[in-house]
Amino acid sequence: MSDLRVGNLFANAPARLLDEQFDTLLARPGVRIERIVSTGQASAPGFWYDQPQDEWVCVLAGSAGVLVEGEDAPRALQPGGWLAIPARVRHRVEWTDATQPTIWLAVHICP
Amino acid sequence: MSDLRVGNLFANAPARLLDEQFDTLLARPGVRIERIVSTGQASAPGFWYDQPQDEWVCVLAGSAGVLVEGEDAPRALQPGGWLAIPARVRHRVEWTDATQPTIWLAVHICP
Repeated sequence: MSDLRVGNLFANAPARLLDEQFDTLLARPGVRIERIVSTGQASAPGFWYDQPQDEWVCVLAGSAGVLVEGEDAPRALQPGGWLAIPARVRHRVEWTDATQPTIWLAVHICP
Repeated sequence: MSDLRVGNLFANAPARLLDEQFDTLLARPGVRIERIVSTGQASAPGFWYDQPQDEWVCVLAGSAGVLVEGEDAPRALQPGGWLAIPARVRHRVEWTDATQPTIWLAVHICP
């Protein structure tokens, strides 16, 4: 990274998307910072994220329910709510806010 | 990281602090995710951050002015505003919001 870069997490967040929108904000060896915008999407039935990297993920606007495998109910994330999900802990997005965009910030950390 | 961990960035943000509050949310080899709460503090006169690591930093509540060495004026950050500051780019916090807590999220990435 040689140049200073700037942005705003809340800019250019469409109110309605066919698919979730993923934007990489910064990528360095072993680390990637990503903004995700959801507008009511959820993981497909039966789909689980099963990632080789650790993930720190936060909801900054809207709301979402993240189900961690083995837990009884999704964890409801409101703005500011974060999860640090170890590699290989399977999880899925049960729901995202249907009334407003949900803006996520995710930091992916390779082991 | 073996256990799932949870938190909220907006929880436990005191309205008035003598010094800025730094909380490490997640630390992994080469990466550290930190929440910072400022309540009107600024960098001391003449002080510059001059860091060996890259930093991605975002204001999530409140507001702040970050001066990058060589620039004419501080960059005013509102909620959602982020800067990716390369290692060794000197910078300082000229001001933070005097009327409400400023909540920052910083990701420090070792080269």
